[in-house]
Amino acid sequence: MSRPTTRLWDKGGTLDQAVLRFTVGDDPTWDKHLVHWDCLGSAAHARTLERAGLLSGDDVTALLGGLARIDARARVGDFNIPVELEDCHTAIEAELTRECGQAGERIHAGRSRNDQIATATRLFMRNAATEWLDLLGEFVEATVTRAESDGDVAMPGYTHMQPAMPSSVGFWLHAFAEGGLEQMHTLTALLNRLDACPLGTGAGYGVPLPLDRAYTAQLLGFARVQRSAIDVQNSRGRLERAFVQQAAEIGGVLEKLSCDLLLFTTAEFGFFGLPESLTTGSSIMPQKRNPDVVELLRARSARLKARVVELDCVAGKLPSGYQRDLQLTKEPAVRTAIELSDMLRIATQVVREFKVNAERLAAAMRPELYATHAALELTRGGLPFREAYRQIAAEIRAGNFDDARVAAWRNDYARVTPETLNEIRNELKAARQREEPRRARIAAAETSLLP
Amino acid sequence: MSRPTTRLWDKGGTLDQAVLRFTVGDDPTWDKHLVHWDCLGSAAHARTLERAGLLSGDDVTALLGGLARIDARARVGDFNIPVELEDCHTAIEAELTRECGQAGERIHAGRSRNDQIATATRLFMRNAATEWLDLLGEFVEATVTRAESDGDVAMPGYTHMQPAMPSSVGFWLHAFAEGGLEQMHTLTALLNRLDACPLGTGAGYGVPLPLDRAYTAQLLGFARVQRSAIDVQNSRGRLERAFVQQAAEIGGVLEKLSCDLLLFTTAEFGFFGLPESLTTGSSIMPQKRNPDVVELLRARSARLKARVVELDCVAGKLPSGYQRDLQLTKEPAVRTAIELSDMLRIATQVVREFKVNAERLAAAMRPELYATHAALELTRGGLPFREAYRQIAAEIRAGNFDDARVAAWRNDYARVTPETLNEIRNELKAARQREEPRRARIAAAETSLLP
Amino acid sequence: MSRPTTRLWDKGGTLDQAVLRFTVGDDPTWDKHLVHWDCLGSAAHARTLERAGLLSGDDVTALLGGLARIDARARVGDFNIPVELEDCHTAIEAELTRECGQAGERIHAGRSRNDQIATATRLFMRNAATEWLDLLGEFVEATVTRAESDGDVAMPGYTHMQPAMPSSVGFWLHAFAEGGLEQMHTLTALLNRLDACPLGTGAGYGVPLPLDRAYTAQLLGFARVQRSAIDVQNSRGRLERAFVQQAAEIGGVLEKLSCDLLLFTTAEFGFFGLPESLTTGSSIMPQKRNPDVVELLRARSARLKARVVELDCVAGKLPSGYQRDLQLTKEPAVRTAIELSDMLRIATQVVREFKVNAERLAAAMRPELYATHAALELTRGGLPFREAYRQIAAEIRAGNFDDARVAAWRNDYARVTPETLNEIRNELKAARQREEPRRARIAAAETSLLP
Amino acid sequence: MSRPTTRLWDKGGTLDQAVLRFTVGDDPTWDKHLVHWDCLGSAAHARTLERAGLLSGDDVTALLGGLARIDARARVGDFNIPVELEDCHTAIEAELTRECGQAGERIHAGRSRNDQIATATRLFMRNAATEWLDLLGEFVEATVTRAESDGDVAMPGYTHMQPAMPSSVGFWLHAFAEGGLEQMHTLTALLNRLDACPLGTGAGYGVPLPLDRAYTAQLLGFARVQRSAIDVQNSRGRLERAFVQQAAEIGGVLEKLSCDLLLFTTAEFGFFGLPESLTTGSSIMPQKRNPDVVELLRARSARLKARVVELDCVAGKLPSGYQRDLQLTKEPAVRTAIELSDMLRIATQVVREFKVNAERLAAAMRPELYATHAALELTRGGLPFREAYRQIAAEIRAGNFDDARVAAWRNDYARVTPETLNEIRNELKAARQREEPRRARIAAAETSLLP
Repeated sequence: MSRPTTRLWDKGGTLDQAVLRFTVGDDPTWDKHLVHWDCLGSAAHARTLERAGLLSGDDVTALLGGLARIDARARVGDFNIPVELEDCHTAIEAELTRECGQAGERIHAGRSRNDQIATATRLFMRNAATEWLDLLGEFVEATVTRAESDGDVAMPGYTHMQPAMPSSVGFWLHAFAEGGLEQMHTLTALLNRLDACPLGTGAGYGVPLPLDRAYTAQLLGFARVQRSAIDVQNSRGRLERAFVQQAAEIGGVLEKLSCDLLLFTTAEFGFFGLPESLTTGSSIMPQKRNPDVVELLRARSARLKARVVELDCVAGKLPSGYQRDLQLTKEPAVRTAIELSDMLRIATQVVREFKVNAERLAAAMRPELYATHAALELTRGGLPFREAYRQIAAEIRAGNFDDARVAAWRNDYARVTPETLNEIRNELKAARQREEPRRARIAAAETSLLP
Repeated sequence: MSRPTTRLWDKGGTLDQAVLRFTVGDDPTWDKHLVHWDCLGSAAHARTLERAGLLSGDDVTALLGGLARIDARARVGDFNIPVELEDCHTAIEAELTRECGQAGERIHAGRSRNDQIATATRLFMRNAATEWLDLLGEFVEATVTRAESDGDVAMPGYTHMQPAMPSSVGFWLHAFAEGGLEQMHTLTALLNRLDACPLGTGAGYGVPLPLDRAYTAQLLGFARVQRSAIDVQNSRGRLERAFVQQAAEIGGVLEKLSCDLLLFTTAEFGFFGLPESLTTGSSIMPQKRNPDVVELLRARSARLKARVVELDCVAGKLPSGYQRDLQLTKEPAVRTAIELSDMLRIATQVVREFKVNAERLAAAMRPELYATHAALELTRGGLPFREAYRQIAAEIRAGNFDDARVAAWRNDYARVTPETLNEIRNELKAARQREEPRRARIAAAETSLLP
Repeated sequence: MSRPTTRLWDKGGTLDQAVLRFTVGDDPTWDKHLVHWDCLGSAAHARTLERAGLLSGDDVTALLGGLARIDARARVGDFNIPVELEDCHTAIEAELTRECGQAGERIHAGRSRNDQIATATRLFMRNAATEWLDLLGEFVEATVTRAESDGDVAMPGYTHMQPAMPSSVGFWLHAFAEGGLEQMHTLTALLNRLDACPLGTGAGYGVPLPLDRAYTAQLLGFARVQRSAIDVQNSRGRLERAFVQQAAEIGGVLEKLSCDLLLFTTAEFGFFGLPESLTTGSSIMPQKRNPDVVELLRARSARLKARVVELDCVAGKLPSGYQRDLQLTKEPAVRTAIELSDMLRIATQVVREFKVNAERLAAAMRPELYATHAALELTRGGLPFREAYRQIAAEIRAGNFDDARVAAWRNDYARVTPETLNEIRNELKAARQREEPRRARIAAAETSLLP
Repeated sequence: MSRPTTRLWDKGGTLDQAVLRFTVGDDPTWDKHLVHWDCLGSAAHARTLERAGLLSGDDVTALLGGLARIDARARVGDFNIPVELEDCHTAIEAELTRECGQAGERIHAGRSRNDQIATATRLFMRNAATEWLDLLGEFVEATVTRAESDGDVAMPGYTHMQPAMPSSVGFWLHAFAEGGLEQMHTLTALLNRLDACPLGTGAGYGVPLPLDRAYTAQLLGFARVQRSAIDVQNSRGRLERAFVQQAAEIGGVLEKLSCDLLLFTTAEFGFFGLPESLTTGSSIMPQKRNPDVVELLRARSARLKARVVELDCVAGKLPSGYQRDLQLTKEPAVRTAIELSDMLRIATQVVREFKVNAERLAAAMRPELYATHAALELTRGGLPFREAYRQIAAEIRAGNFDDARVAAWRNDYARVTPETLNEIRNELKAARQREEPRRARIAAAETSLLP
C-alpha cells in the first residue's frame, strides 16, 4: 500500500515539531507560486523516464493526468502544502502517490529535490522575466506617448536640485523611455541565462540512469541543457540574485521617476499633479491629498535592492553543491516577481495619468536658466569660454540678467524630437520582436506538457 | 448613524482597487501582530482624553471594554483586517465604532495614525527585546552548562582553518558565552532607547489639545516622554533599524556557532555530532543525515543582516516627518521579532544536545599544535623569540617534531576555568536583575490598562 | 646580528611578488593610522613581560624609548610601512630590532599579531568614539543655540512632503537635538563594549606564559580584561561592525538634516539659504551656487551604511578564530573614524551658518495648515472627530477655507519651549560628565606608557 | 593673461579650506586613474568643436599635443591633481591653459564637467570590462586544462557538507568553467550597455551649440550616441552599479572556488594542497602554512558585494540630473576595476597550481557514497523508488553497506567528458571572437585620437 503523507526522506525516526517548523519555515506560503512549475518539471521528468524505459506508458499517462489535476486545483487556490509535507515537491509527490499509487512512488527515480527545485524556480523566473518585458514595454510606450502629447511644455532643468538650464516635459520623459529601453536589453540577457535546463542532474552529482537530458530540455522549452550538475546547484542563489538584481535595476528607473514626481508635485514646485484616484488622505488632517502611491513606488523600488543583499547574505560563502541555506533563496525570487509586476503596472498608470500644470511651469522659467546661453553667445565672438563665464556671472550678480536679456532664447529649450521618439518606438518594437521566438517556443512546450 | 467600514481619511471620493491593493500591501498580515499593542495604545489615549475632559467616563468605559474584547479575539486569531480597511488601526477604530457608536468616532480626537503606529510598534519592539533578553540568557546558560560538563576535552584550536594551538571544548564554548553576554548588555541599551512614549504627538507637529503626555507615558509603562513630535516620526525607521540591527548582531553570534558546528560535524572533522532529532534526510540518497537545522540557523542569521539594509533602503534619504515609505518598516521589525526568538530557542537546543566525539578529538591533537610551546620554552633559556621561532620551524620541516617531543605539554592546553564560568554565571544573574524594575513597571502598566 | 627587514613569519622560502602585493593590499595606507596605537600596545606588552620576569629592565627601557621615537616620527608623517614588511606591526618590530638589537627580537614573546591587531584597533576605535562624542555634543549644542535664536519663526510642517500643520524653525531643529542626544547615549554603550583589553591572548588560544592580563589592561587604561581568547578573535569584525554601525546611525541623523536642507534651499521652497562659503559653482553655468557641501554630507552619510555591509560581507560566515579575511576589517573602521569626525564638524558648521529666509517662510503658511485645528475645534462642541473631519474637508473643497477663517490660530503653531531646550542642555551636560571618568583614566594610562 | 590654477567655477569668492577638503574628498587619488580617459574625451571634444567651426585648426593641434603630453606624464606617474584643483578635469584644463594659453580656455565651450566625467568613467569602465573578459577567459581555460590533466581522480561529492555521491576532480572543476563562461556572456551584455557616448550633453540639458554627437561618438570608438542628456546624468550611478555588480557576480564564482579550496585544504579533508608560493606563515606559530591568498580571494570577492550597496546608498533616491552625491560613485568603480583584475589573475594562478592529493581523495571514497546507486539498482527490478530508498537506508543503518557491497560501481563516478571540455573550449573561443570587432574599433579610435 502507498504511504502518501510523509517527508520524502522519512526513514522512520522522529522529528521534533519545533524543529520541523523551523526547517519548513515559510515554504508552504512561497511554494504555492511554484506548484505549476513543479508540475511541468515533473511531467517532463516522467516522459524522460518513459523514454529511458524506466516508466511504463500507462504510468506516465496516469502521472500526467494527476499532474494536470493538481495544477488545475492550484490555479484556483485549492492545493495546499501542509507543514508536515514541507514543500510543494513533497506535497505534489504525495498527492500523485495517493491518486496513482505506485506510479507516484516511481516518479522520483533519477531525480532529487535539488534538481526539482532548481527546475521549478528556473521556469518560474523565466516566466516572470518575460512578463516584466511586456510590462516594461508598456511603460516605455506610455512615456513616449506622454512625450508626444505634453512634451513641448518648457520646464526648468535642475542640477543639484537648483535651476540649471531650460528643459521641457518631453526632454524629461525621454530619460525614462531610455532607462526602460535599456532594461529591456538587460532582460533579454537575463532570459538567455535562465534559458538552460537544470533537470536531470540529481542531487548535484548526476544520476546513474540513462536519462536523455537534451530531450528533457526540449520538453520544457529550454534553449539548452545546463551541462554541469554541480553548477546547477551552484547557480541556485546565483541566478535568483541575477533575477532580483535585474528587478532592482528596473526599480532604479522607477525610483528616480518617483523621486522626481514627489518633488515636482510638492505645493512649492507644483509642476505636476496626481489625479484623485492616485492619492489618499490623512486620518487627522482634513485638507490632505497625499501621493502615497508614488511614495510606495519609491519605497518598494528601494526595497528590491535589499533583496539582492538578502541573497548575497543567504547564499554567500557557501561551498559548492546544495546547502540547506539555499531554501531561503525562494522567498526573494517569488516576492520580487510579483512585486515588480505590480510596480510596473502602477508606474505606467502614473505616467499616463499625472497632470502637467502649465502655468506653474511657465512661471518657473526664470532668466538665469539662460546664463549658459549668454556665455556661449559671447564665445561666438571669439572670447574664450572661461572669460565669457566670468562676465555673465558678474552680470547676474549685479542683477542685470532679466527677462529682456534672455527674450531671444525663450523658445530655445531642450526638447525631444519626433525623430528620436520614432527611433524609440522602433527600438521598442525590435526589442519585443527579438523575444518572439523564445516566447513561442516556451508556450508550445508548456502547452504540450500540461495541456 | 455610525459609518464603521471605511478608511479613516475617506472623504467620499473613489479609489482604484489596484491602487488600494498596492498601497495596503501586506499590512493585513503584519498588522495582526500589532493589534494587541494598538489596543493598549488606544486605551491609554482614551484615558488621556478623559483626563483632559475630552471624553466622558461612560465613553471611556465603553471603549476600554471594546478594546479588551478586540484584544481577546486577536489573541485567538479571530480578528482579521480586511484590505479595504488598510491596517490594524482602521480595523480597530471601525470595530470600536460598530460596538460603541459615537464613542468610537471620538477616540481619534488628538491623535493621528502616525503616532498610533509609532506607539504600537514601539510597544511591540519593547516587548520582543525583553523576550530576546530572556532567551539569550538561556542560551548563555546552556553554553556555560555544556562547558562545565564537557569543557575539559582537548580540541585543536584553528587559525586560517588550519591547526594552530591546543584548545578545548570548554575554551571554545566560552567564546559563545561571552558573545551572548555582550549582547545582553547591548539589549539593555536598546531597551533604554525604546522606553520613550511617542503617543500624543499627532501627525508629527503636536496636537492643539491639552493632552497630558507624561500621564500617557505612565499609563503605558514608559520611562519617559519622547519630547519632539518631529523626532517621533524621524525615529520611525531609525528605531526599527536599531531593533533589527540588534537582532543581526545576536544573529552574528549564532551564525559563527553554526559555521563552527557545520565544520566540526563534517565526516572529515567528526569532532561533534547532532542527535537524530536535529537532522533531516535526502529525497534521493538513503544514507544521508543532514544538519539542516544548523544550516538554516546560519542562513537565517545571515538574512537578518539584509533586514538592516532593507530598512536603510526604505527609510533612507527621506526628509523629516512622515512619508508613506515608512509603512514598509513594519514587516522587517515584525518578522525579525518572531524569527530571532525562534532562532535563539533552536540554538539553545543545539548547544544542549550536540554530541562530543572524544575519540575523534583526541586523534586530532597532533604534535605540531605544540610548536609555539616549544619555541617559547627556548626563549626561557634567553634565546630571542624570533630565533627560537626559526629553530622550531626547521625542526618541523625536518620531520623531527613528533609525539615524544611534545609529551611534556600534553595536559597543557587552553581551558576555561571554573572561576571564569562562575564569573559568567554571576554576570548573567546581574544582567537579568538589571532589567527587573523595567519588566515589573511594564507588566503593571499593561495589566492595568487591559486587564 | 639582527635581521630587521623580513616578514615575522619568514622561514626562508620565497614568496611571489604579485602574491605579496595581493596579500598586503592597502595595509601600508590604513596601518599608518594604527602606528600610535600599536606603539602603546607594544609598550604595555613589554612592561607585562618585564613583570613576568621575561624581559630585563634594560631591555624594557630600550624598547620604550624606541617605541616613543617611532611614535613621534609617525605623528609627523615620517614612519612608512614598506610593502615587504606587510603591516605596521612588522614595521614597528623591524624598526625596534634595528634600533635595540635583541631586545627587539624579544618583544614578540607571548604575543601574536592577532592580539596585537585586536589591541591596536580597539584602542583606535575607543579613541575615535570619544572624539565623536565631543563632536556630537557640539552638534547638539549648535542645534539648541539656533533654536534659541531663530526658533520662533513659523514654518509649515510636512507629511508626505505636502503641507500638513503649522510648525516652526525651532520645532524642526529640536528633532535634530534629540536625534544627536540619543546617539550620545548609544556612543556610551559602544564605549563600554570597546573598553575591554584583548592583549595577552596570543593567536586566539592563550599564551603558555605567566602574563598578568589584569596588569596589561590597567596599563592601557581598559575597564576590564576581555576574558575569552577565542572571543578576542571572534570580536574582530564584530566590534568593527558595532563601531561602523554606530557611525551609520549618527550618519542617519546627518542624512535627514541634509535632505531637509536640500529641499528647503531649493529655489521653489526658498525657506533656508547657505552662505557663500558653503556653496560651490558650475563649470559651465555662470549663475549657479550649488549646495555641494550638503549633498556630500548626505552622500557620505549614506555611504556609511554600506560600510556596515562591507563588514558583514567580509567577516560574515567565518568559523571561530582568526581568518585572514579579517584584514579587510581595518579599512572600514579607519576610514569611518576619520570621515564621521569630518562630517560632524561640517554639519555643525552648516547648522550654525544656514540662513533663515523669514519672508518666504511667512508666505508659505497657507490656511490649509490649520485644517486640523478647525476640525478639533468642532469636536469641542461635542461633534465626533470623524464627523468634524468630513465637515472641514468639505469646506476646503468648496474653497471656503481662507486666511480669515484661520486668523484666530495664526500664533498657534508648534514651538519648542525654553524649558525643553534647557532640559536638553542639562542632558547634554550630563552626557558629557558621564564620560569624564573613562576619559581621565585613559588619558592617564596613555601618558604614562608613552610620555 | 591666462589664469590656469583655479577651480572651473571660480567667480572670485572665498572658500573655506575645510569645506574644500570635504568636497574634494579622495578625488585626487581616484582621478589619477581617469586622466588618460579624460585626455581622450577632451581630444574628441576639441575635434568636435573644430568640425563645428568653434575652434581653429591651430588651437586643436596645440590642444591635442598638450593632451598627449599630459597623458604621457600621467602614465609614468608624473601628473598630480592638487587639492585646490579638485579633480582631474580641472587639473587637465589648467595644465592645457598653462601650456596652450587661450586655446586651453576655449576647450570647455559646449561641455560641462558633468558630461566630461560621464565620458571618462564610461571609457574607463569599457576598458576594464574588456580586460576582465580577457582574464576571465584565462581563468576558464585554466579550469579546463586542470580538468584535462587531473579530472579523472575520484572525489566525494557533498551536499550539506556531508558526503553525498561519487564525483571527481574534473566534475568539480567543470562547475567553475561553466560559471566563468556564463560571466563572459554577461560581460558582453555589460559592454553593450557601456558602448554609448555621453559626450556632448553638457550639464544634462544639452548644449546650445551645433555639435555633431555622432562624430564625437565615432572618434571615441563608441557603438552609438547616448541620446538623452538627462539619461546621461541618470546613468551615473546606474552604470557604475552595473559595472560593480558584474564584478560582484564574477566575484561570486571566485568566492565559491575559495570556499571549496579552504575546506578541501584543511588538515582534516586534505584533498588539495597549495604550493609554498601561495601560502604564508604565522608570527608566533612556527609550524604554520596558511592559505591567506585564498582567504583574501574569498574576502575580496565578498567585499565587491558591498560596493554594489555603496552605489545603491550613494546614488539611490536622487532626483533626475546631476547631484554632487554622484562624485562618490567614482571610487567604487575605479577600485573594483583594479581589484577584480588582480583577483582574476590570482585565481587563475591558484587553479593552475593547487595540488591534488590522490591518496587522501581515494581514502575518502566511502561506500555510503554509492547508496543511491544501490537504491536505483533495486528500481530496475521494478521496485518503486521510495521502497528501494527505505530498503537501502535500513541496510546502512544495520552496518551492512561495506566496500564489497559497492565494488561493482567503483569506477562509476561523475566525470566530465572530453566532449564537454571541447564544447567549452569552443564556446570560450566564440566568446572571445564575439568581442573582436568592438575591441578593434576601440583600439583604432583611441590610437587615432592620442597616438
